[in-house]
Amino acid sequence: MKPVLLTMGDAAGIGPEICVKAACAREGGVLVGDAAVLRRALHQCGLQRPMAVLDTLDEPAPPGAVAVWQPPGLPDGLLELPQGQVSAACGAAAACCIEAAVSAIQQGQGAALVTAPIHKEALHLAGSPFPGHTEMLQALSGGAPVRMMLANTELRVVLVTVHVALREAIDLVRRERVLQTLQIADASLRRLGLMSPRLAVAGLNPHAGEGGLFGREEIEQIAPAVLEARQQGIDASGPFAPDTVFMRARQGAFDAVIAMTHDQGLIPVKYLGLDEGVNVTLGLPFVRTSPDHGTAFDIAGQGRASEASLLAAWRMAQDFSGNSAAS
Amino acid sequence: MKPVLLTMGDAAGIGPEICVKAACAREGGVLVGDAAVLRRALHQCGLQRPMAVLDTLDEPAPPGAVAVWQPPGLPDGLLELPQGQVSAACGAAAACCIEAAVSAIQQGQGAALVTAPIHKEALHLAGSPFPGHTEMLQALSGGAPVRMMLANTELRVVLVTVHVALREAIDLVRRERVLQTLQIADASLRRLGLMSPRLAVAGLNPHAGEGGLFGREEIEQIAPAVLEARQQGIDASGPFAPDTVFMRARQGAFDAVIAMTHDQGLIPVKYLGLDEGVNVTLGLPFVRTSPDHGTAFDIAGQGRASEASLLAAWRMAQDFSGNSAAS
Repeated sequence: MKPVLLTMGDAAGIGPEICVKAACAREGGVLVGDAAVLRRALHQCGLQRPMAVLDTLDEPAPPGAVAVWQPPGLPDGLLELPQGQVSAACGAAAACCIEAAVSAIQQGQGAALVTAPIHKEALHLAGSPFPGHTEMLQALSGGAPVRMMLANTELRVVLVTVHVALREAIDLVRRERVLQTLQIADASLRRLGLMSPRLAVAGLNPHAGEGGLFGREEIEQIAPAVLEARQQGIDASGPFAPDTVFMRARQGAFDAVIAMTHDQGLIPVKYLGLDEGVNVTLGLPFVRTSPDHGTAFDIAGQGRASEASLLAAWRMAQDFSGNSAAS
Repeated sequence: MKPVLLTMGDAAGIGPEICVKAACAREGGVLVGDAAVLRRALHQCGLQRPMAVLDTLDEPAPPGAVAVWQPPGLPDGLLELPQGQVSAACGAAAACCIEAAVSAIQQGQGAALVTAPIHKEALHLAGSPFPGHTEMLQALSGGAPVRMMLANTELRVVLVTVHVALREAIDLVRRERVLQTLQIADASLRRLGLMSPRLAVAGLNPHAGEGGLFGREEIEQIAPAVLEARQQGIDASGPFAPDTVFMRARQGAFDAVIAMTHDQGLIPVKYLGLDEGVNVTLGLPFVRTSPDHGTAFDIAGQGRASEASLLAAWRMAQDFSGNSAAS
């Protein structure tokens, strides 16, 4: 069975710690990162587990060991850098791990990608042109349109717009973009085993525009996209009043909600706490998930970062990749 | 002790039913409405309680009876109108009850106002110039600036903007308006017994603008309002990233969140369900609360509407008015 590949993220953050904690809790993964950094993380977390440094990803890991693959081109001296601080070397190492893991998956050596948090500023210092994981993965995959899905145990949200000013987000809520989001969400959730995912589309305005009284985006852009998606066989409905559609989805009325803006979608996903939140990049030619938190430089090296979200991301990656036999 | 006045709302909706259910569950209130309609509601809910129709609000209600005051000017024949349908007469009756209750409170005959749901279209058919309760109450009180607060057992949210298109709401997020919201929220929550309410201010844009990268409203409008409020002795903080500030407030970090838009605030308040949601109009010279739901014409007359939110509104009205001795 192909392993799930977990990239260590920024070596100065909590990524290495949550990676080794997760690898001690679950079988079937290989950590992609610097062996010395990951060994330090084991020590900082008080874990006694042996580490198996693999020469290639085809090599099976000995049972009970934390399996690590060091990609070629990792910068030297990561262990000397202070934890909790931004550095170009940690940014370069994080990018190197991601690129190598994607390449391995493209060559059939990995089942799915789970990424520990990177630091945007470190990535920038390392000369990467990408603001984050999503853009980097999209470029490494040939530029397919992608969407961010946030999910926890009770709610899945797919975002039409992400990191732009709210004013710009409104301009981006166009028929084509909403339709494409529905198409990507439908195709992706079918891979999760949902035969015909029930997709609720949120409106943009209060009361979904109240018939045009509070804005016309629902009438001119969103409703036509829902109609066209339905004609394509997608079980889309809406646009619904944003203030209750997430509650209804949580209660089981829908399999996912298509949210128009970053916070419309993330407020309900995060409302009950962050531990189990998972970020899934939909639309890539492979499965990629990540925990719903950052590098947490303030607690890096203390061994107390929670691996719960990374484990949830790992489980969801296996659910998506159909490789769910691992424990 | 002055009674809390509960207006019956639209007679064709669930208002009369939830009013009589609440009056059977709690002492110290007087229903302001049509006695025949309320008697029908008792019957439809299967309640055997006697009704006491008061001539004036100064008259004490006999213990164990549902106390009703019929305001002068109520339209005739309400009982003949079909439940679940919009009518001018029901709109006029609803407005009559609200006007009479406000007048009674202004004359010292009531401790606080709790309003059952009205129907906007019925109100309009009756010739009322007001789109809803809030605007009518504001006009009846001389036009003081008001803000809507939504609260449940774990979260309080005060809204800077309400029923406008999202694009217009962005234009309304100005320093003066945010500051006024903070002032109103601070003064109102002190009446609830909070000595120095901890008010968290949400940003407007993703990540609260990420230092200007995703919008400048935080820098130019919201942060200056927070600063000015602090200089006035208000415990305001922020602007915070919208996607986590509500979660933090739920966990106890703040007493209330100032939300920039309708759905930013209402999505988290409603996420866990509607039963206990209360709408409080802040800034009026008297206390006014209402349940966080509508007339529910689809189930009117069936006796199965839940009075939970109306009871929560009643409890909160008494907490605000300091009249919390009633059971």
